[in-house]
Amino acid sequence: MAKQTPRTLSGFMELLPAPQQQMERIMETLRKTYALYGFTPLDTPVIESSDVLLAKGGGETEKQIYRFQKGDADLSLRFDLTVPLAKYVALHYNELTFPFRRFQIGKVYRGERAQRGRFREFYQADIDVIGDGKLDISNEAEIPAIIYKTFSALGLKRFRICVNNRKILNGFYAMLNLTERAQDIMRTVDKLDKIGFEKVEAILTGDLGVSREQALEILSFISINGDNETVLSRLEEYRGRDPLFDQGLEELNAVVKHLGAFGVPAENFAVDLTIARGLDYYTGTVYETTLLDHPEIGSVCSGGRYDNLAEYYTDKQLPGVGISIGLTRLFYVLGEQGMLNPELNTAPADVLILPMTEDLSPAIALATHLRENGIRTQLHCEQKKFKQKIGYADKLGIPYVIFLGEDEISAGVVACKDMVTGEQTRLDAKATIYRIKAGLDIRNQGSIIRE
Amino acid sequence: MAKQTPRTLSGFMELLPAPQQQMERIMETLRKTYALYGFTPLDTPVIESSDVLLAKGGGETEKQIYRFQKGDADLSLRFDLTVPLAKYVALHYNELTFPFRRFQIGKVYRGERAQRGRFREFYQADIDVIGDGKLDISNEAEIPAIIYKTFSALGLKRFRICVNNRKILNGFYAMLNLTERAQDIMRTVDKLDKIGFEKVEAILTGDLGVSREQALEILSFISINGDNETVLSRLEEYRGRDPLFDQGLEELNAVVKHLGAFGVPAENFAVDLTIARGLDYYTGTVYETTLLDHPEIGSVCSGGRYDNLAEYYTDKQLPGVGISIGLTRLFYVLGEQGMLNPELNTAPADVLILPMTEDLSPAIALATHLRENGIRTQLHCEQKKFKQKIGYADKLGIPYVIFLGEDEISAGVVACKDMVTGEQTRLDAKATIYRIKAGLDIRNQGSIIRE
Repeated sequence: MAKQTPRTLSGFMELLPAPQQQMERIMETLRKTYALYGFTPLDTPVIESSDVLLAKGGGETEKQIYRFQKGDADLSLRFDLTVPLAKYVALHYNELTFPFRRFQIGKVYRGERAQRGRFREFYQADIDVIGDGKLDISNEAEIPAIIYKTFSALGLKRFRICVNNRKILNGFYAMLNLTERAQDIMRTVDKLDKIGFEKVEAILTGDLGVSREQALEILSFISINGDNETVLSRLEEYRGRDPLFDQGLEELNAVVKHLGAFGVPAENFAVDLTIARGLDYYTGTVYETTLLDHPEIGSVCSGGRYDNLAEYYTDKQLPGVGISIGLTRLFYVLGEQGMLNPELNTAPADVLILPMTEDLSPAIALATHLRENGIRTQLHCEQKKFKQKIGYADKLGIPYVIFLGEDEISAGVVACKDMVTGEQTRLDAKATIYRIKAGLDIRNQGSIIRE
Repeated sequence: MAKQTPRTLSGFMELLPAPQQQMERIMETLRKTYALYGFTPLDTPVIESSDVLLAKGGGETEKQIYRFQKGDADLSLRFDLTVPLAKYVALHYNELTFPFRRFQIGKVYRGERAQRGRFREFYQADIDVIGDGKLDISNEAEIPAIIYKTFSALGLKRFRICVNNRKILNGFYAMLNLTERAQDIMRTVDKLDKIGFEKVEAILTGDLGVSREQALEILSFISINGDNETVLSRLEEYRGRDPLFDQGLEELNAVVKHLGAFGVPAENFAVDLTIARGLDYYTGTVYETTLLDHPEIGSVCSGGRYDNLAEYYTDKQLPGVGISIGLTRLFYVLGEQGMLNPELNTAPADVLILPMTEDLSPAIALATHLRENGIRTQLHCEQKKFKQKIGYADKLGIPYVIFLGEDEISAGVVACKDMVTGEQTRLDAKATIYRIKAGLDIRNQGSIIRE
């Protein structure tokens, strides 16, 4: 029979078992952390009607989308989790209770040009809090705590959550009578890290027609840095000149004020006036998260406050705040940087049982007993040589191997080998289980990510 | 602005938060149970190249598939998890260790005619053990244990795992010199439950041209029932007439022999000579699982032994055994039958904190403390009336509400209301956490499914 060459599409991540275990651990950590903050899991279809998904229309999105006909239907694969959320909230508005806090970890699709580290199918892990008409600033203040807890739970320490407020930015440009050019200016300022002060100034005064005086004001403003207290007191100097700015400053103060109570250490947080997060969607606090040792990766968790989640579907005013982690890309980058802890237990089982008798019953009963005790157990009854069976455990990194022969069965003991230390015990089942569980507790302490 | 009416495609399940929590609990239970048996999680792309996915070609599949062009590429959405597994194993053969045990819970797509309870996007939850060249019968014997453990963990008691062996069937029809007509005969016999003995006999002797004597032999054979011992001893009477039959009987004996050691109670298992599971793929033990009180649902977990997983991709002989749960349909049916335990905690949080002071710091610090203790906590700081906030907890089924006013803060206590009993305590944080955790332990004991 002619064979079809098996292959996986370019831009689609397909992991081998060990890294898949690491990925699963990350997802489990995210689910648990998001749940701790009162977010409920949601799962929406991967396919939506194109008119629903593209209600906003236009832009890069439409070019990248996977769109196709099925019968009479014009269908598209979701390209993010925000549009499906907007649809969901508008559709189920009467059945939901607000504020509505949901998380969703799901695959999204973008037909980008294939290149290394770019994916066409990738996981996003989103949380959002949606209010009905209003949403208190405390929700914006809580977001850094969630980001901190999430990345800490994964094992990261050297990261920084950068926060800004769009009202401060818009208010500031209003003070300078530059509201109409604010978008272009912010886009230029956003390049500061890459092109430096002089070039930013040149673009501002050149292409954008900003006066030299205004340009200096802008550069002086975005240069404000230091600890939270310093930045906030410098911003106080601008108070009273624009009501939007003043409101943004109030909000930023509220966000910063409660960091301590939320358990966010000062070193993991910074007010950063240069971040803006796109230009039309966000209206209040905005967030970016960077790994201090890997700034080249860019933000690994971003989001912000918006005023109108579902305006394309409903007249209801649904303000919200949310963040998103590009999980597939993050996982890829962590792997590339050697930051996935190789000591993590990625074996498919904790124990491999090798029956050494013709009758498998005692080995099977032991496996059942171990499983009842929560120990992941595999029986290896294949017709293979002993050495091959040990090699199987070794290759898969299964930490314990149990041999059960006539001697052990008649003595009422279990021979159990620790595959790392080589230590072998002959203890009864209860003591063996105790030893294995204690060993697994230590083995499973390691974090998923190491720096 | 003109609004786009929000809607979800017909045939696509989109759950409200409370049922979604139930679904998540089911998936978590499956993941944990499969892991206990040494299966490693896998995640393959939803999209594959059409030539890869349709290597086998033909049949119902091709008509139902979601297939489309993107640029030059001819793409399809997966319609099951078996073909992607075959591709995966063939593609990564050199990097895998055999026997390879994997589970996968993922969405698959079939553009069936939309009707109630039929889904076009649905979850399958599959496990498979793949051998390299050979695979021991013990793997087939273990499958009923996994099915039993899975459904028991979900809370089901009244279900039966029905087992048969294709070698026994094929061997039996060989004895009667009916090998060529065996497929049609089995298809007829499969209808026994629906049409009864007389009509089966009529079709056999009529359309299928089976002699009256042969028909009686067939009907007598498929009427063999009773406990495992009875069935097996009745089957012994056929021994020695066909080598394939004899091999199948050996295998069936091996599967039945170890049920006790595997922890499968006799009442949850039956040898059933009428089941055949399709006609060309399976070659050994086959499985179906029925809910005793809901036979109309059909099998909720089926599968079997096959000899050649990846024959369309590789010359390697890769025998395996696997089972699949149609999770979305099962969830739908359980809901329809009122079998999803309504007392299960489906709230997004365990505790809702209502700060009663201007300064939110003490409430936030308490929330952080509760979360550090693993309690899912939501702060409710919206500008709403007290009654509305209590109503929020009530609507969402949040079991505990904490009030934190000046009095409590200065007294170093926390006012905590049990929303079910109405009981309110004023204890310090430590004692409050202890009480909440004890209460949650009881509340979370309930099973997901109730009969």
